[in-house]
Amino acid sequence: MESRQWILDSRPTGEPTMENFELETVELPDLGAREVLVRTLYQSVDPYMRGRMRDAESYAEPWDVGEPMKAGVVGEVVDSEHPTFDQGDVVTGELLWADYAVADGDELRGVNPSLAPVSTALGVLGMPGVTAYYGLLDVGDPSPGETVVVNAAAGAVGSVVGQVAKLAGCHVVGIAGADEKIEWLEDELGFDAGINYKTEDVRSRLQAETDGVDVYFDNVGGDVTDAVWPLLNVRCRVVVCGQISLYNATETPVGPRKLGQLITTRGTVEGVLVRDYAPERWAEAISQLGEWVGSGDLGYRENVVEGLENAPDAFLGLFEGVNVGKQLVQVAEAEYADI
Amino acid sequence: MESRQWILDSRPTGEPTMENFELETVELPDLGAREVLVRTLYQSVDPYMRGRMRDAESYAEPWDVGEPMKAGVVGEVVDSEHPTFDQGDVVTGELLWADYAVADGDELRGVNPSLAPVSTALGVLGMPGVTAYYGLLDVGDPSPGETVVVNAAAGAVGSVVGQVAKLAGCHVVGIAGADEKIEWLEDELGFDAGINYKTEDVRSRLQAETDGVDVYFDNVGGDVTDAVWPLLNVRCRVVVCGQISLYNATETPVGPRKLGQLITTRGTVEGVLVRDYAPERWAEAISQLGEWVGSGDLGYRENVVEGLENAPDAFLGLFEGVNVGKQLVQVAEAEYADI
Repeated sequence: MESRQWILDSRPTGEPTMENFELETVELPDLGAREVLVRTLYQSVDPYMRGRMRDAESYAEPWDVGEPMKAGVVGEVVDSEHPTFDQGDVVTGELLWADYAVADGDELRGVNPSLAPVSTALGVLGMPGVTAYYGLLDVGDPSPGETVVVNAAAGAVGSVVGQVAKLAGCHVVGIAGADEKIEWLEDELGFDAGINYKTEDVRSRLQAETDGVDVYFDNVGGDVTDAVWPLLNVRCRVVVCGQISLYNATETPVGPRKLGQLITTRGTVEGVLVRDYAPERWAEAISQLGEWVGSGDLGYRENVVEGLENAPDAFLGLFEGVNVGKQLVQVAEAEYADI
Repeated sequence: MESRQWILDSRPTGEPTMENFELETVELPDLGAREVLVRTLYQSVDPYMRGRMRDAESYAEPWDVGEPMKAGVVGEVVDSEHPTFDQGDVVTGELLWADYAVADGDELRGVNPSLAPVSTALGVLGMPGVTAYYGLLDVGDPSPGETVVVNAAAGAVGSVVGQVAKLAGCHVVGIAGADEKIEWLEDELGFDAGINYKTEDVRSRLQAETDGVDVYFDNVGGDVTDAVWPLLNVRCRVVVCGQISLYNATETPVGPRKLGQLITTRGTVEGVLVRDYAPERWAEAISQLGEWVGSGDLGYRENVVEGLENAPDAFLGLFEGVNVGKQLVQVAEAEYADI
């Protein structure tokens, strides 16, 4: 049985291009003990993957040149040698940019299609949702009445951060890069204000909309963070979740030095990585997020690109900010699963 | 009765010069209720004072141009309208760069001359010591076996940080700017290693001396911090206590962006300000530090400049790194106090 899969053809310098990706077709091996053949329904593309294209030690292992690239996948079980999974089950795990993958069944989690569309297991009820949940509540630790500012606010993580902050009783300002995104934040997700950093002055808008920033949830870094920094309040907490504006830099990015402000504010800056919460606390977050989705308190959007052949485009679009909500690639329709 | 006092004559741009200071002579007022006339024995000069010369909101109120400048002082009581203090008592408080000051007795603390030389109330048993104590133990939170790196390591704060870290069972590396300082750290204070940042490559020396940095206590900022940053370990803690290398900058200092590394390390960066611990926990720290001084576990040095007229020079020397240990100005010999 054949499967198409994307391999890392070369490491990018600066912004990745189609030249860095190659689609190859391989013959799938037979299943071994406890293995599962999964057909990809949805594949996730995420900003952190840019780091895996680089040959540098980081929190995620670099991909090898010439080898298939990994991704969060929601798929259906086609065949199984694992006692937990049967044909037609919907599962999620870190698999491949591919039509099919042979997975270690012990590394898969089941997805319950009756709770929400299965694609949400890659977004609001998956890694981005859990990142937002613990990044905000555990690291950011907001109190009612505090001001929370989040950037990439219309993205998979940021949109959850802002809504959970509202549920926590905070005043919430989101920063994003398109008027359509700002409207979504303000009109549908209940953000108190949205700032379009491409057309507005972030610092002066924040001064107008807030009495300073108590929790800053940073997915972006760079200029946007420079604009927020002077407005940090005493005892502020900065949650560093991503720095997408810097991921394609070819030289060490430089900017205004920021540590001195932390003496004035006695603020805390802390990085968050979702895998520190897995697997023990993952279920707790998903359960709460699922309740909020079910009750309508937590809205989400998905930006779905059709076809495995378009996966690199979907990935590259993240750096252009084209997605509203979670960026997904729909690779196939379910054949066995009842969804 | 007359007193000489230094006033802020003008605000500096960049490095302060003698032009910014003026010594004037004033007639002291009579004492009011609960007031105390204090003769300055020792006056402190501290890096944070540079911020008070600036007309900008910060954690310490700016000094007004044309007004006397404030400083930590150890002095003797010459006259008292306060029930707690009598002539000849040794006291400390935030007074003036002056021969004498009329102080609110409620704002003074008594100094016990039998415990240690009274000048230590401005150093190892005063604000710098308490800063080091809580900055390291409360914010840095080191565990035995961890590596602690501190810069300005031969200064009033850094020298205490390193020794307390040794007492906490840590591997301690100090960074300073003179071979004489490095010898003091290594040979007398028990640091595991010292690095002269003016003559050695900080990053490569740290790579050789450590398995990465668990706690980084930063008094300096700038290039030295840039060199330490890539070596931060997972779950590192960075204590931002001072940024002396940047205090005289005339434009916004820029440098390599640092937040991304915090995702990789899930590190925490936190500012510390000693006044957050005063007055409740101040006595607890002084008591512990005093025990260690008494037992010989905590060494210290003082760099004493004689004469109030030389106070600005002593202050300016801080930015040249001329002091080993705590920089003091001896203003007078005690007349009434038995020390």
